[in-house]
Amino acid sequence: MIIVLKPQVTEDEIQHIVEKIKSLDMQPHVSTGQYRTIITVIGDEDIIREQPLEAISGVESVKAIMRPYKLASKETHPDITVIRVGDVEIGGKNIVLVAGPCAVEGEKEVIKHAIMAKKAGAVLFRAGAYKPRSSPYSFQGYGADGLKYLAAARQETGLPIVTEVMDPRDVGLVAEYADILQVGTRNMQNFNLLKELGTINKPVMLKRGMSAKINEFLMSAEYILSYGNKDVILCPRGIRTFEDITRNTLDAGAVPVLKSFSHLPVLCDPSHAVGLKDYVPAAAMAYLAAGADGIMVEAHPNPEDALSDGQQTIDFDQLVDLREKLGMIAKALGRDIY
Amino acid sequence: MIIVLKPQVTEDEIQHIVEKIKSLDMQPHVSTGQYRTIITVIGDEDIIREQPLEAISGVESVKAIMRPYKLASKETHPDITVIRVGDVEIGGKNIVLVAGPCAVEGEKEVIKHAIMAKKAGAVLFRAGAYKPRSSPYSFQGYGADGLKYLAAARQETGLPIVTEVMDPRDVGLVAEYADILQVGTRNMQNFNLLKELGTINKPVMLKRGMSAKINEFLMSAEYILSYGNKDVILCPRGIRTFEDITRNTLDAGAVPVLKSFSHLPVLCDPSHAVGLKDYVPAAAMAYLAAGADGIMVEAHPNPEDALSDGQQTIDFDQLVDLREKLGMIAKALGRDIY
Amino acid sequence: MIIVLKPQVTEDEIQHIVEKIKSLDMQPHVSTGQYRTIITVIGDEDIIREQPLEAISGVESVKAIMRPYKLASKETHPDITVIRVGDVEIGGKNIVLVAGPCAVEGEKEVIKHAIMAKKAGAVLFRAGAYKPRSSPYSFQGYGADGLKYLAAARQETGLPIVTEVMDPRDVGLVAEYADILQVGTRNMQNFNLLKELGTINKPVMLKRGMSAKINEFLMSAEYILSYGNKDVILCPRGIRTFEDITRNTLDAGAVPVLKSFSHLPVLCDPSHAVGLKDYVPAAAMAYLAAGADGIMVEAHPNPEDALSDGQQTIDFDQLVDLREKLGMIAKALGRDIY
Amino acid sequence: MIIVLKPQVTEDEIQHIVEKIKSLDMQPHVSTGQYRTIITVIGDEDIIREQPLEAISGVESVKAIMRPYKLASKETHPDITVIRVGDVEIGGKNIVLVAGPCAVEGEKEVIKHAIMAKKAGAVLFRAGAYKPRSSPYSFQGYGADGLKYLAAARQETGLPIVTEVMDPRDVGLVAEYADILQVGTRNMQNFNLLKELGTINKPVMLKRGMSAKINEFLMSAEYILSYGNKDVILCPRGIRTFEDITRNTLDAGAVPVLKSFSHLPVLCDPSHAVGLKDYVPAAAMAYLAAGADGIMVEAHPNPEDALSDGQQTIDFDQLVDLREKLGMIAKALGRDIY
Repeated sequence: MIIVLKPQVTEDEIQHIVEKIKSLDMQPHVSTGQYRTIITVIGDEDIIREQPLEAISGVESVKAIMRPYKLASKETHPDITVIRVGDVEIGGKNIVLVAGPCAVEGEKEVIKHAIMAKKAGAVLFRAGAYKPRSSPYSFQGYGADGLKYLAAARQETGLPIVTEVMDPRDVGLVAEYADILQVGTRNMQNFNLLKELGTINKPVMLKRGMSAKINEFLMSAEYILSYGNKDVILCPRGIRTFEDITRNTLDAGAVPVLKSFSHLPVLCDPSHAVGLKDYVPAAAMAYLAAGADGIMVEAHPNPEDALSDGQQTIDFDQLVDLREKLGMIAKALGRDIY
Repeated sequence: MIIVLKPQVTEDEIQHIVEKIKSLDMQPHVSTGQYRTIITVIGDEDIIREQPLEAISGVESVKAIMRPYKLASKETHPDITVIRVGDVEIGGKNIVLVAGPCAVEGEKEVIKHAIMAKKAGAVLFRAGAYKPRSSPYSFQGYGADGLKYLAAARQETGLPIVTEVMDPRDVGLVAEYADILQVGTRNMQNFNLLKELGTINKPVMLKRGMSAKINEFLMSAEYILSYGNKDVILCPRGIRTFEDITRNTLDAGAVPVLKSFSHLPVLCDPSHAVGLKDYVPAAAMAYLAAGADGIMVEAHPNPEDALSDGQQTIDFDQLVDLREKLGMIAKALGRDIY
Repeated sequence: MIIVLKPQVTEDEIQHIVEKIKSLDMQPHVSTGQYRTIITVIGDEDIIREQPLEAISGVESVKAIMRPYKLASKETHPDITVIRVGDVEIGGKNIVLVAGPCAVEGEKEVIKHAIMAKKAGAVLFRAGAYKPRSSPYSFQGYGADGLKYLAAARQETGLPIVTEVMDPRDVGLVAEYADILQVGTRNMQNFNLLKELGTINKPVMLKRGMSAKINEFLMSAEYILSYGNKDVILCPRGIRTFEDITRNTLDAGAVPVLKSFSHLPVLCDPSHAVGLKDYVPAAAMAYLAAGADGIMVEAHPNPEDALSDGQQTIDFDQLVDLREKLGMIAKALGRDIY
Repeated sequence: MIIVLKPQVTEDEIQHIVEKIKSLDMQPHVSTGQYRTIITVIGDEDIIREQPLEAISGVESVKAIMRPYKLASKETHPDITVIRVGDVEIGGKNIVLVAGPCAVEGEKEVIKHAIMAKKAGAVLFRAGAYKPRSSPYSFQGYGADGLKYLAAARQETGLPIVTEVMDPRDVGLVAEYADILQVGTRNMQNFNLLKELGTINKPVMLKRGMSAKINEFLMSAEYILSYGNKDVILCPRGIRTFEDITRNTLDAGAVPVLKSFSHLPVLCDPSHAVGLKDYVPAAAMAYLAAGADGIMVEAHPNPEDALSDGQQTIDFDQLVDLREKLGMIAKALGRDIY
């Protein structure tokens, strides 16, 4: 931790800060330059991070040296995490394609959709039973019934299921049915939900908050890890910026940063990132070329009839075509696709 | 709803869209210009909003005419909402000052802090029993015990209590103790929490999400209102932008927009908006001059010992001074301060 | 300057960095903690700022201690700068109201508009002869003729003139006519224009770039100051964010920061900040309450006929009303209005 | 153009708007729904775009239908533009790799750097003679001498030269030396510079402004095209967002949008987009996979000695490696690399 003092700081103020740091069992080193005095603090940054040093008279700014997460960090955990779901490894050599509609639309429908996904070459199936909708008047999902329909779809196709959980009260139930539990972008900092997910033994796919900095994203992964669940998949899905032609701004640049900072697998969602089906294939390829371990897309046999997010949903033929393209990019990168 | 068609749209595609709209019991009017064909749809926009029209072949874009909320809108509810808590009216002529520390720091402490707030002229007391912290290793709040301490502080001072609820499971308990329940910025779109808050009979202070558009903010208010709770207070608290000298970017410009779009009272939080105590008074005055009905600040007798957010917390003398300044601005605006 | 090294940095790499710093006549102090080694560099930060230290093997990040501007900084120039134009002091006790249309619309028109501005109580008149328009097909301004019309308007009313210069080739000509030369938001980092403006003896009003950080804004002021012109007025005018209901996001929170970092006067433009006339008065009051030394608004006798920016232009009655409100806020702040 | 009226609009106000539109020789169609009246305007949107309709009493909002550019638009110019420079086609089947240091660092140096670029397989050489630096105290480039050094480097290697022009006064001189003139991100809306570039017969590489929306980017291309120069290359280079780990946010998602809206070639700059050399290869591959026609990177034989931007500059070995990877991705996409 580096503490930069104000130019007009007094000797008494410096002394007060030095004593405060010593009282925390840490060692302060004072360096006096021509314009500024700096205090370098050696010791466990976690302790001092909790102190409101900027509230102390004479302090101009405080600069942390260490990143605030440990379990999610490659630094303290250099081995890459590979998460196995059924026969599929997420974070291994092979790229993983996850596909399915935004929402579970009924039992027959979801089975039909899973069959479509499998036929197109997806190895995991996604669909939402619980739907976070920005309007209370929109379709809110089939809930617990939707979970049963998903189980039926898995039964039929063998594809493991990725589905969202929104409420800490539902974690147990969703964990009974799902193979991977998804945390949506709006819940990335729903800490009580993260804590519950830290106690289950199913993998969690954590979507990046739409205005979350990369370090906050990893801090939310740290919540789940710190409560005992080691299987967290990071899911970039676009961020909110001033650009409004696309629904969000594709955050492909976050992929190499996440891969550099963390050992966790990265699986990206191009559908929400761009929000318009015509741009989804290019977005998916960009994520992959940037280093993603997998791609999750919204796909539906007839997007204009989808109950949710139809405008960003590709159809069966587009999904087949996308898988082929992803396979070729994967090979160019020395990887392969399931 | 306006549907703009692609330049190369075919007659068959137009016909398909027209029939889709008619099948929803709405009337399409087709206007053909030199470069584009437009379909104006007359009827209940709520129905057509749910349709993924942009997924239909030939559609370039869809433009909504109406705002997607009704209960939060001034248009359908022109009378200003005034919320009464004890003797205090929020949204009336008088400005409301809410003050207190970020977190409940113990029973004795919180009583002391409430006495300080009262002495400085605040009419509501704020402090968090449940704390949403971005790190799992940070102090997480006193929880249920904290609520009891808050009740003791109210008992001692008579000041009504504003405190946060983070989890739908805690809504009932918090509602027993608090006078106003606060939803934090990270939970603005925690829809299950909003639904629970819609069923209680205590006012809810809804903080703006750090990257929420104004219409999304009002949509979250709509959730609470639509579940039956009419007492929602809107709380701008800064938004996330590229500027990083301040913790967030002061969203004073949102105040006149909210006042124009909605009948709900607007009470602003300058502490989180700027994040550094030296700028809090200017930020508070800017919010007030922009039209806020009240100001909520973090204040602590000794900010450098605060358990949370000390760097943005003002002390007793600064709070007294701020109240005086707010009172003068209020008078310049033809209002007054409690 | 603080250099944070990578966890796996080698002794050779540390030695290389230490020598590099010594070769610049600066002193490195190496601190080794449990997780990281840090090198604190004492000496003239301007020299080392130019070195691409992050390109050196073993370096994780480099953190500057000093702000990169000197002449614009309050630290090296603690006395407040007050700029006198005619009888008006900008940056003194009295608030300055600048008003006028977006563009010079002809000789008779601009005289009429200046008379209106004076009648409403403005003490400076603004109108653009050169117009930066995002479309090449939009009205581009009257250019040199417009400058003559502005001179006629000054002749008629006695109001000093604020007008924009867009091109380094026009600086001499504009300086002959204008009392204050304005740099528009799109030219805040047009460094050759800034250099030319550094050589004239008229004040410059520098608008904040729409995505400029505060330190970049002050760096652009530093350009003008460093070329010899001491009279720079800082003009916040809204920044670009994800919020799109208003044209820009009101940056009232930048005002106390600028006042804290710099000695230069701050005069704000609420018209561009919000972009819709109904919100301009609230925005103007927010800027003023945040600490602005003056307000510049677009005003026109008949906004719907304005040649540019009519949607954000207030009319005569609104201008009179705004001046009265600003006067009351100014008094509440212990200031006054001209 | 769609004009949405306020709910409380009067008959007189509607009549006034209708007449205003007719006076512009356009036809208004009034549609009255349950909640809102809408006026659809048929005719040349360029005329009505200039009118401040939102300033008229009774108007709530105005929605444009057409994009405001014509020459840059694929709609009015469906054939793809391919720009030939020497033997290289930009926008054709083959991917173009442009490489070189940020700045011209002297005559011998720049020749050495061009030889390195050629050896690594680049087909165009980039280096700046004029440098837009955010600090007036930073190295400002060799200027006119730098242009001569660049000519010597071209003489030596045969590589065509890409170099920046910052000032309308320098356009003629730079055009004598450069093969492609670059407009930097800070000058994307320096309209007088764009106008000058519209009159030359050399291609212009237009970098995206760091907070420019895609439509504004294309509007700036339109400036150049409308003044007669048909050879404009669009250069995404990252945008400014809240994320600060990387220098900018990679705008790979803009590539398919630009390709869909415009016929102009797209050549991307990953170095500025991410700003740290370790992430440049992933960023380059993401841009390419998203559909870019070429990649421009900062490369230097010894980045830690670079006079500018060393932290984002790759070295010779990394450049060779990057070219190989780009070649493999190009093939996966059915393209090739020069």
